[in-house]
Parts: sequence; C-alpha cells; structure tokens
Amino acid sequence: MTDTAVAHIATPEDLLAALGHRYAVKKFDPAGKVPDDVWKALEEALVLSPSSFGLQPWKFFVVDDRAVRAKLRPASWDQSQITDADKLVVFAVRKCFGPADVEHFLDRIAEVRRVDKETLASFKQMMLHSVSQPPEQVEAWLTRQVYIALGVFLAASAALGVDACPMEGFDKNEFDRILGLSPKGWKAVVIATAGVRSAEDAYANAEKVRFPLNEVVQHL
Amino acid sequence: MTDTAVAHIATPEDLLAALGHRYAVKKFDPAGKVPDDVWKALEEALVLSPSSFGLQPWKFFVVDDRAVRAKLRPASWDQSQITDADKLVVFAVRKCFGPADVEHFLDRIAEVRRVDKETLASFKQMMLHSVSQPPEQVEAWLTRQVYIALGVFLAASAALGVDACPMEGFDKNEFDRILGLSPKGWKAVVIATAGVRSAEDAYANAEKVRFPLNEVVQHL
Repeated sequence: MTDTAVAHIATPEDLLAALGHRYAVKKFDPAGKVPDDVWKALEEALVLSPSSFGLQPWKFFVVDDRAVRAKLRPASWDQSQITDADKLVVFAVRKCFGPADVEHFLDRIAEVRRVDKETLASFKQMMLHSVSQPPEQVEAWLTRQVYIALGVFLAASAALGVDACPMEGFDKNEFDRILGLSPKGWKAVVIATAGVRSAEDAYANAEKVRFPLNEVVQHL
Repeated sequence: MTDTAVAHIATPEDLLAALGHRYAVKKFDPAGKVPDDVWKALEEALVLSPSSFGLQPWKFFVVDDRAVRAKLRPASWDQSQITDADKLVVFAVRKCFGPADVEHFLDRIAEVRRVDKETLASFKQMMLHSVSQPPEQVEAWLTRQVYIALGVFLAASAALGVDACPMEGFDKNEFDRILGLSPKGWKAVVIATAGVRSAEDAYANAEKVRFPLNEVVQHL
C-alpha cells in the first residue's frame, strides 16, 4: 500500500536461487517454526494477491489447532506434512458467489478510495455479467483466482526462506466438514503447508525436474 | 537448482513493499523496457513454477512480433497493454493431456535424476489415474496449475521491479487462432503483460483495495 517507488527487492540471481531452492517439502521438521513477523508477512502477501477485478473471492483458513490437524491427516492420504508442518493453510473459494458479493466489494472500494459507489456503475455491470454465468463456470473461474494466491504464497515463502508444500491430495468434502466451512459459505480448493524442511527429507536434495526453457517458453 | 541453503532473499518489509507497489497496470510506458537479464530470470521463474506432480502442463508464449500484437489487441477489448507493454506472455495449457504426456514427464525425471523409469511405476499409476478423469475435469485441473505459474510470475515480477498486468479479458479462441496454438496442442488460458508503468496511469497511485486481513485470514 505504498505509493513510493520500489525499484526491486531482489536481484535476478537471488530470485532464481530462492525459487531453485524451493521444492514441495515431503517431510517437515516438526520442531521447525516460522518466525512470527515472517508468518505475518505471508498472511499479508495472501491478502495482497491479485484476482480478477480484484474480487478476492477467497478466504485463507490457518489451522492452528493440533487436534484438528490430526483429524485432517487421514483425509489427506495420511501425509505427514498435515501434522508436522508449522503452518497449514486451507485455501477456500466463496460458494455461490453472486451480486451480494459484488456489492460487498464495491462497498469496500468506495470506503478505501473514498469514492461514491455511483461512479463504479459500469465496473459493477461488468462484474455482475461475469457472476451471472452458470454457477459451475463462476466457481471454476473463481477457483482459478485462488490458485493465483497459491502461486504468490509459494513465491513469497521462497523469498522469505520459508519451506512449503502445496497439496491437492486431500478429501475436499472431508475438509469442509471437519473445518465447518460449508455453513460459512466456503469450500476448500487447495492447501499449503509451511515450515522448515527436515534434514531427513531425501527430496530436498533431489535435482529439480523441469523441462528445458526452450521447450516451455516459446517466442512468437 | 541449487542444493546449498538459501536462507531468505528479502525481508518481510521489503516483500510487502514490493507486493504493495504492484498493481494491475492499465497504461504502460511504450518506451519502457525490461532489462534482458531481468526478463531471462522471469522466464526461468516460469519454468521453476510448481505444478501438480510437477507435470508442467503448460507453455508460455512470449509474443515479440509487434504486428501480431496489433492483431491481438482487437481480440482483447482493445486494451492498450497488449501493444504498449514491453512483453506479452500467453499462458497456455496442454490440450487433451494424456498418457503420452505422462510418459514424456517420466522420461524427463529419469533423465534429470538419472533413475530407471521402472522405479517410478507407482508415481506413474497415480498420474495416469488423474489424467484418466473426464477430459473437461482434467483440463480444468491443469488450467488451475497454469494459474499457479501466473501467481509466481506476478510475485517474481514485483520482486524484480517489473510492472505487470494479468488479463483474462480476451477472446481465447481468437488468440488460439491468431497465434496458431491449436494445431500445436495448446490453448490460451490467461495472459500477462509486463514492462514499465506509465507516469500517466492514474491507477498507479490509487489506494489498493483489499478486504481487511481479519476478514480474509481466519485462524482455526
């Protein structure tokens, strides 16, 4: 929320070192902690993530309760990250996103930018058009926005030296049930665990597998 | 691809300054250029993006040809970023992703990690199961992975001081046609323009609109 110039905060070499060091942690050090100020910044990074129209159709549930984490593990193919990582974030999308959510967003714009809501009429129409598509299409579109936040979170974690693991291998319905997300109007779409990689995680030193740049990036 | 420790490359304050400075650029400086080494790093960041199983079901088309950019603009609601930004990246997903793509990935793992493909049999079965779902579901799942790369790209751009704008408001079929993506087996899903913000872009100094942290992040 600064309006002063920020030239850059990392060199190309440093950025690539951090992204190269990053990997999907298979085994966390159960004693490893993310410092409070660093975690706070990652939560703020989630808040600052871009989304279509800036709608922010998401909520990020940070599961601190260890007993709840233990219940979630069987719903995640018993993957150890669920209980061993310092942090577990459940990325959720708004269910049945509709005109009321658009109004809520417009209210926030008017509040933050101190503008009259009436001046946002054409913007409102664009958004209402988008959310009037078939519900499954709207949900798929908004779910993709949540994945932008996941990408930002993983890159931000790498920059701050926090190890993480994005995870899709979990029972979404069970997560919704255990965390009570449905009655609140939310639906789990993807999760990320974060903390400190274990010295015993063999994958930490495995060569990263990527297709060559000239196969993945093509200039036209 | 380093196996040495990278503690962190940014402080929490710097990271938040960069993400706060970032915004969806409406007007680029047509004369503004991204330095070559910085752009190369952003291409590498795309390559390093995480994806489910590490499948990398994507390709990133960087449209350098100005005449082609001019043709794409009418297919993008005539938005000026398409022609004025230094860079335009079309994020594409693999069409009809199937067993052959899984094999291609397994070949790459075997090559990079110098392991026998036979040792990857159970991993292969998991991936084959995932890609055997109904085609629309597979495509929706893989498209979400592309959005992770978009999030990484936007965060990496912010870290390197490159201004950007993610864009969904374009005619995907027209993009596929103009760029000839379909016969190559790709489908445009989202685009990002990147370069230098114009001093005339009023949005550059507009307050960023986000819901409060305690509304977006909930501890359980």
